Amino acid sequence: MKRIGIIGAGQLGQMLGFAGQNLDVEFVFLDPSPDPPASVVGPVLRLPFDSDEGLRQLASDADVVTYEFENVSVSAIERVCADTIVYPPLDALRISQDRLSEKQLFESLQIPVPPYRTIDSAQDLRNAANDIGLPLVLKTRRLGYDGKGQAVVRDEADLSDALTALGGSNLIAEQWVPFDCEVSAICVRNVRGDVLVYPLIENQHRDGILIISRAPAEANGLAALATRHLRQMLAHFDYVGVLTIEFFVAGDQLLANEFAPRVHNSGHWTIEGARTSQFENHLRAILDLPLGDVSPVGHAAMLNLIGSMPPKNLDLGSDTIFLHDYGKRPRPGRKLGHITVVASDPADRDRTVTRLSEILVAQANPTGIADCIDLSG
Amino acid sequence: MKRIGIIGAGQLGQMLGFAGQNLDVEFVFLDPSPDPPASVVGPVLRLPFDSDEGLRQLASDADVVTYEFENVSVSAIERVCADTIVYPPLDALRISQDRLSEKQLFESLQIPVPPYRTIDSAQDLRNAANDIGLPLVLKTRRLGYDGKGQAVVRDEADLSDALTALGGSNLIAEQWVPFDCEVSAICVRNVRGDVLVYPLIENQHRDGILIISRAPAEANGLAALATRHLRQMLAHFDYVGVLTIEFFVAGDQLLANEFAPRVHNSGHWTIEGARTSQFENHLRAILDLPLGDVSPVGHAAMLNLIGSMPPKNLDLGSDTIFLHDYGKRPRPGRKLGHITVVASDPADRDRTVTRLSEILVAQANPTGIADCIDLSG
Repeated sequence: MKRIGIIGAGQLGQMLGFAGQNLDVEFVFLDPSPDPPASVVGPVLRLPFDSDEGLRQLASDADVVTYEFENVSVSAIERVCADTIVYPPLDALRISQDRLSEKQLFESLQIPVPPYRTIDSAQDLRNAANDIGLPLVLKTRRLGYDGKGQAVVRDEADLSDALTALGGSNLIAEQWVPFDCEVSAICVRNVRGDVLVYPLIENQHRDGILIISRAPAEANGLAALATRHLRQMLAHFDYVGVLTIEFFVAGDQLLANEFAPRVHNSGHWTIEGARTSQFENHLRAILDLPLGDVSPVGHAAMLNLIGSMPPKNLDLGSDTIFLHDYGKRPRPGRKLGHITVVASDPADRDRTVTRLSEILVAQANPTGIADCIDLSG
Repeated sequence: MKRIGIIGAGQLGQMLGFAGQNLDVEFVFLDPSPDPPASVVGPVLRLPFDSDEGLRQLASDADVVTYEFENVSVSAIERVCADTIVYPPLDALRISQDRLSEKQLFESLQIPVPPYRTIDSAQDLRNAANDIGLPLVLKTRRLGYDGKGQAVVRDEADLSDALTALGGSNLIAEQWVPFDCEVSAICVRNVRGDVLVYPLIENQHRDGILIISRAPAEANGLAALATRHLRQMLAHFDYVGVLTIEFFVAGDQLLANEFAPRVHNSGHWTIEGARTSQFENHLRAILDLPLGDVSPVGHAAMLNLIGSMPPKNLDLGSDTIFLHDYGKRPRPGRKLGHITVVASDPADRDRTVTRLSEILVAQANPTGIADCIDLSG
């Protein structure tokens, strides 16, 4: 039995753990949080992600180490885990941690990106506004996620406020691409170099937060192009594991937004919606097992559950709707779970998504309109 | 010949002016901007919107006064134009200028809104986060437009920054409604009380900016409900002119976001896509003429042109695509024009929208990938 060490024990770690139940593996996690979601699938070392002691123990306990989020110290892992197999390659992790390196890599691999400039001063930002136009999106180079560390600048009067809000330097200004939908492409490559690519996924964000993913995407005609871009990335890193790229779609162009060297929120539908989930395939890849079939088994959608869970008595009314509860304390703003819908055709799926959204919005405001009358005003 | 005075001479004023060419009217505008778009359709009084002199002259030159945007002083108009007919009613304008009054009106008319709280202190905001949950959307009560004066608060750590950024008081916190599309409903009522309602319009925003409208909306099954809400508003104000309400759609619920007592960006498609445009019907309404047929002539979409115009040699390749150039200086971030597509079915329309979006994104970055390599980095 192989033992897999995972840095991070959130919901992605939990779902990797569930996927491992089909394989001859066990898990150990490194995560300082109290009661993290993955604690139901293996022991958790309760130490900081970048602690030498934690990483050393993880490496000695495990045959192979992987990670489930990007906010970890590459240099600490390199220092402590020099004799340990770590997948995906740390080069991919390092580059994904800096939007500038990430864009430069995309460009060097002929993967188009929206026009951008580096911003380290007010003058840089004024020049960028002239060069790439307004609106523009100002982003911190490091550690942005879920739309945090970003500001949309609509006119010149807002430039200096946005600059101040984001810290004034180590920023990227990107052209605001107006006409698009957003898709993600998820692939997997094992040690021996087999590659499989999931159907393209269409993602619906609101305010930078992923709310719904649908697969296969309507834009699945772009799948061949997405696969070409993914293969460039896989080859560049001699990559092992699951890799995700998020793209903006504009006509028949794909503009790369960012990549994640890990399983991805937009791939949760693969648990029930594909023959083999992204989680099982990530494990298969890093264990150098044959990869599982990535074909879809229907038309799937995934709805994130943010801040609160649906009512306990939610009547799913169908065996093609799957509720995932990560077992987190319902802290506001947190991703607490997701719902997957699998249907035989897109219209059926979308009708179910609509019905679910109605239930979720209604439960956020259970007593109806009376509840939202403001008595203080 | 009747003379119509319009406060504001932007693109809405310009399109009202063009619509007037079918009617026996002429126009005079009040707008301090140099070279405003509507100057091609009538004389412009170059005085501030709230100047007594400007308003007095407008009132004395015109048989009926209307306005093309909300950021005008109701008290100045009431003071100066007491003996002038002003449509839509100033009560509607006053209420639309304050998000709190607006929500209270919706509620009093049994039109559902997302749960919200008034925010005048850090304590209010903490209470709101507890009551309505996170994420939440914090908005200034007055003068927000195009997503300005808004912040999405994802977790508790961001509460105080968001509060500071928006000025600390006179704010509204709204529940972040996760699962929706956005639609607008446009109707018109003339002095004698005839009412017509355009098909429901689906709006695609990015970062709070309207980029594409499509009509009739896929959610047109909600048209009867939208009409009920519109009629409540029209009756309440004894309204005259075009009225727009924006809604969030969640399942078979419509949650009101805001209303505009005027012609609306999401209704520009009506120029070619409906038998009578919102602009002509606004004029007919305030002149108490019979209203024109609001039936759609096909499946329409409208793409806003923001910051830059398409290339001069844009090959529209079809006589069902209409380019509108407002003749503005191309200042960054500005709405400079729009394109309307009219097709016989939604799939055709959407294919054309996709092709146009490709052209528009390509022209923003004309020389391709080489243009976006950052030489300074």
